[in-house]
Amino acid sequence: MSALNQAGEASYEIAAASAADVGDILRLIRALAEYEKLIDQVVATEAALHEALFESKPQAQALVARSAGGVVGFALYFQNYSTFRARSGIYLEDLFVEPAHRSRGIGRALLRQLAAIAVERGCARFEWAVLDWNQPAIDFYKSLGATPLDDWTVYRLTGAALQALAQEPT
Amino acid sequence: MSALNQAGEASYEIAAASAADVGDILRLIRALAEYEKLIDQVVATEAALHEALFESKPQAQALVARSAGGVVGFALYFQNYSTFRARSGIYLEDLFVEPAHRSRGIGRALLRQLAAIAVERGCARFEWAVLDWNQPAIDFYKSLGATPLDDWTVYRLTGAALQALAQEPT
Repeated sequence: MSALNQAGEASYEIAAASAADVGDILRLIRALAEYEKLIDQVVATEAALHEALFESKPQAQALVARSAGGVVGFALYFQNYSTFRARSGIYLEDLFVEPAHRSRGIGRALLRQLAAIAVERGCARFEWAVLDWNQPAIDFYKSLGATPLDDWTVYRLTGAALQALAQEPT
Repeated sequence: MSALNQAGEASYEIAAASAADVGDILRLIRALAEYEKLIDQVVATEAALHEALFESKPQAQALVARSAGGVVGFALYFQNYSTFRARSGIYLEDLFVEPAHRSRGIGRALLRQLAAIAVERGCARFEWAVLDWNQPAIDFYKSLGATPLDDWTVYRLTGAALQALAQEPT
């Protein structure tokens, strides 16, 4: 998928990520984490990302947005599953467009492509999580017709608490 | 995994679900949805669940808890993916124990088995969503050391809004 600029040339292109994009994707993951004030959580490496996206049994998939300067945005997603609908859904783990390339419709184009993938796969839902202080993102998502699941909270077990439960005597 | 009662007999057993359990799992999904006041969302069928859990490329997996009376609880899960950690996680979509079989440790045993699966698979996180009014569940999860992701909200695009975005001209 590509968009035309006023000269009729493609100004950016959305495509499935290839193995050659892993370095750019890691760079953008780190930029997203900086924006989210969560950079201390990032331990991802190119090798680990390559394995997750391009090994024989991929754990996730990615789209990249390419512009004249190279990769300027990405969306990384996987399939979740709803028991109530008994259907898979698309879960968007990360969406990021570099600040210098915002307001060009790239974020919307990435989401549009993912919505098309969801419809093509027969998914009932397309979901993602947003930080509550990220008002520009929230406004954008609401403008697309997305609804917040305000009455649900995700709980996480990790680190020592996860190990402790796993090893608890039965 | 089984637990012993005071006579030294197994009072219940946690095991990977088999295709023969699909009818029981659908019954418990409906019971969970009734409890969550979301029964109107349930369109799942045995055939769709069978396909998701036992076809060649499963979309989800399940554990069941068997007691003298048959299947009395279940946990249905899939793998999600964290870009920051560059590792898979376990996402628990549904956990349910029939009311008559609560306080026997069955819920905890299901969670313990999933934590062990997460550790075995090298997952960094074990996560699930809880309705904010479900205080007994919240208290239980906090007692295990799970932490609420209070500053995140999930957004969902579905139905006509999903179709509209998918079909938007580029």
